[in-house]
Amino acid sequence: MHISELDTPALLVDLDRLEANLRRVAGYCSEHGLRLRPHIKTHKSPLIGRRQISHGAAGLTVAKVGEAEVMLSSGTPDLLVAYPIVGESKLRRLMEVARKTNVTVALDSLEVAQGLSSAAQAAGLTIGVLVEVNLGLNRCGLDPGPDLVALAAAITRLPGLRFDGVQSYYGHIWLNKPDGPAHFEKVKQGIAQVQEDFRKAGIELKIIGGGSTPTLFHSHEIAGINEIRPGTYVFYDSMQVAAGSCRWEDCAVTVLTTVVSTARPGYALIDGGSKTFTSDGIPGAAQPSFGKVTEVPEAVFYNMNEEHGYLDLRQAGKTIRVGDRLRIIPNHVCVAVNMHEKAYGIRGDNVEEVWPVEARGKLQ
Amino acid sequence: MHISELDTPALLVDLDRLEANLRRVAGYCSEHGLRLRPHIKTHKSPLIGRRQISHGAAGLTVAKVGEAEVMLSSGTPDLLVAYPIVGESKLRRLMEVARKTNVTVALDSLEVAQGLSSAAQAAGLTIGVLVEVNLGLNRCGLDPGPDLVALAAAITRLPGLRFDGVQSYYGHIWLNKPDGPAHFEKVKQGIAQVQEDFRKAGIELKIIGGGSTPTLFHSHEIAGINEIRPGTYVFYDSMQVAAGSCRWEDCAVTVLTTVVSTARPGYALIDGGSKTFTSDGIPGAAQPSFGKVTEVPEAVFYNMNEEHGYLDLRQAGKTIRVGDRLRIIPNHVCVAVNMHEKAYGIRGDNVEEVWPVEARGKLQ
Repeated sequence: MHISELDTPALLVDLDRLEANLRRVAGYCSEHGLRLRPHIKTHKSPLIGRRQISHGAAGLTVAKVGEAEVMLSSGTPDLLVAYPIVGESKLRRLMEVARKTNVTVALDSLEVAQGLSSAAQAAGLTIGVLVEVNLGLNRCGLDPGPDLVALAAAITRLPGLRFDGVQSYYGHIWLNKPDGPAHFEKVKQGIAQVQEDFRKAGIELKIIGGGSTPTLFHSHEIAGINEIRPGTYVFYDSMQVAAGSCRWEDCAVTVLTTVVSTARPGYALIDGGSKTFTSDGIPGAAQPSFGKVTEVPEAVFYNMNEEHGYLDLRQAGKTIRVGDRLRIIPNHVCVAVNMHEKAYGIRGDNVEEVWPVEARGKLQ
Repeated sequence: MHISELDTPALLVDLDRLEANLRRVAGYCSEHGLRLRPHIKTHKSPLIGRRQISHGAAGLTVAKVGEAEVMLSSGTPDLLVAYPIVGESKLRRLMEVARKTNVTVALDSLEVAQGLSSAAQAAGLTIGVLVEVNLGLNRCGLDPGPDLVALAAAITRLPGLRFDGVQSYYGHIWLNKPDGPAHFEKVKQGIAQVQEDFRKAGIELKIIGGGSTPTLFHSHEIAGINEIRPGTYVFYDSMQVAAGSCRWEDCAVTVLTTVVSTARPGYALIDGGSKTFTSDGIPGAAQPSFGKVTEVPEAVFYNMNEEHGYLDLRQAGKTIRVGDRLRIIPNHVCVAVNMHEKAYGIRGDNVEEVWPVEARGKLQ
């Protein structure tokens, strides 16, 4: 099938680019002895999870129990739930997942560890635990220091749990920003301090996990990190180009749209807005832009509503008509993929595969 | 079932508030002789569409053919597709809908009208048409003037179509903003000019449609408007409170969330971020806020990632613990509802109904 036969908006995945991205990161991890446990938040599909595993990933990372349930069909030998799991219902479902594959949970509080311990004991299972370290993002995680060691020590004493190590996430760091390198230095210092603290406390760190796509290829510079869990690298997006972590030619996802109105001279409306792309912008961008129009690089995607994308074509030097189709690289591919029920795998202009975005919208 | 038995995040709809909102707008339209054809973009559920009809709505409005298909089960006598429908696949599906209920399409180009005419002729159907007028939003629509009249005249000659009148949308106008009243005056002048132009051209305007929730209760001040199609009024949200179009007590939707981390003193993370609420902000807000925490009004929902909501509790004067549940009024309820598979209808703290958000994610 040719892509012109698809109705719009439609999510297209360039399979050659996807495969090149998978290969490149697998090669990097292999070269530097890093365990790869990629986050499925970006693709949300067991089919791509399976390809990541066949490219050497040791397991997969998810945020939600609902994602873990879906990812079982990828055949992954190992699932990291990189999110504190709270509440009986989620814990019960997680134990069902843990009967089918190895499960590790990342958390940052004794309350969450105790809930997990009770659930694991009741189920007769052992769940791995990583303690989350805050290295400047100020999201989940304890700062390096005695509270972090104390939580780890408490976990080693909780039945049903196996303390595996620590994880951190530092997706706020763009090395091409003025303050990027300084923040990255703090990550290195933080990981060094954690290792020193745990060594003194006599607690082994089997896993010291890091991640994030913007600093992916610098992971080996952080002494001690032995596992990474990037997500966005499979598809990349406009934000990753802005972060300097990829080129436009690496971006595997475009959204195929149709021009529905050119009533206003110099402008056009496309049939994709925030319900198709989400309204995520690019942090620090000089002018608002909601995506890159591949056919008309001078077009400015300057505004959106739920069903409308607003293009400024005054500098485009090209006539755009109602019915024309435009392929747009989203700002933030993870959230854009989440808006689509299906993905179309293409080579050139041919649709080779169609798959459901199975873990789409799994909020719980 | 008590809401404490629900897993989170979960979309809660206060049924008393919903019913009060439906009654208030139905009463207003009845008092002023306005035909009400509400937009389902906010609730995306045939069940609520049916209640709108039982409260006096003459029909329903949708943006996508996929929404029209879903809304058939509401039993609506009439569907307005307020979006230019482009492409054979969508036209074919729309004709199937038009075999089951009356269909009208809003459009702003001869290309779209011709496509619709061909499809209607082939199906042996007659489709109503409204021509979209731009009254300052600069989205779809022709400006008042000769091009608008010419398009309408052309449509009256196209087989399979029935020219019904014009529609406009002016959701950019918040009457509590400094420039709001002046923009609203321009809407009145625009509608007056349109009526004068069409009178001169001898083309009858059966329908002069307006809409938008922020100016809803001022619709009767625009001389000539005889139909409105507001959407957000069923649920309202933080943005509508900011626009001065409702009170907090009118907001029917809250998202039930759970606190998953309090590792950082003075802050908390909840299990809902942009995948639950979307990242829509409030235009012109002094500080970023992603929703109103009903239990802790001093909490500032200052940041979000896909799965994390960041709360600043330093002014909250209340201790928040992991596992606590918080109900949050979203900024933009239409896009938030779109992220949820199910809605829970509650009275007080009891869940009385559960329904699927059936038209969720209908991109095509």
